[in-house]
Amino acid sequence: MKNQTIEDNVRRLKNLLVDFDIAMLTTVQVRDGSLHSRPMMAQVSGFDGQLWFFSRFNSAKVDEIRAGSQVNLAYTDPSSGRYISISGTAYIERDRRKMQDLWSEIYRAWFPRGLDEPDVALLRIEVVEAELWDAATQATGERMRFQ
Amino acid sequence: MKNQTIEDNVRRLKNLLVDFDIAMLTTVQVRDGSLHSRPMMAQVSGFDGQLWFFSRFNSAKVDEIRAGSQVNLAYTDPSSGRYISISGTAYIERDRRKMQDLWSEIYRAWFPRGLDEPDVALLRIEVVEAELWDAATQATGERMRFQ
Repeated sequence: MKNQTIEDNVRRLKNLLVDFDIAMLTTVQVRDGSLHSRPMMAQVSGFDGQLWFFSRFNSAKVDEIRAGSQVNLAYTDPSSGRYISISGTAYIERDRRKMQDLWSEIYRAWFPRGLDEPDVALLRIEVVEAELWDAATQATGERMRFQ
Repeated sequence: MKNQTIEDNVRRLKNLLVDFDIAMLTTVQVRDGSLHSRPMMAQVSGFDGQLWFFSRFNSAKVDEIRAGSQVNLAYTDPSSGRYISISGTAYIERDRRKMQDLWSEIYRAWFPRGLDEPDVALLRIEVVEAELWDAATQATGERMRFQ
């Protein structure tokens, strides 16, 4: 029964995330514990319990992510009054095959040479929990578990 | 010179924030270190180096904020391509006079009894740093210091 509930949540969150192009990724700076966020181009392909983002390998956020770092992703749509907070753990991946699977021409704005760019990396976020605010359903911090 | 620069940044950030109604506030859960965010109604009055939000005193985010907790505020406007990350330290305040100064009827949706609500509190965020992404000026993570 527990697995079924998680599967339901995965399907539901997948249907919600399809409307968002950008997520704000918040990480904790190791040096002083300060919290920093930045916009990330959301993945076009489906959500299956993990979220993937292309990133430069040499970047502050990658420096701030050690294997298993806790992060937050915020998806915001003021026009519909829908807000999603995702709590998860982050990993840096450099698997070429996965990059090829996830590549879309939309990323060329950041990586003009595509996957030939030496500095390209992936962030993989294992989703632990999502919280939803939705003016349409009057959800105010409704929780969905993924682990 | 240093103070002058901070004053410039305060003026600049004040002009930017006036366009945003909602901020996503990210806090670190004390128990397990997980990061959670939630939408907050942004203050209508001017920014002077601190940001204020009305909040219920009995709420998860207040539990997660101890004096001096590090937090992040994310302001997002996909339509203009403008994103702001604010790193700061948070404090819970229950000063009645400050609440009266900051009160606006817009908060009545959350506090039907206004400032007579026993559960009303303020979050005060001392801003340390802001980072700006702006499609109009091609800013990509431009930093502004406030301390």
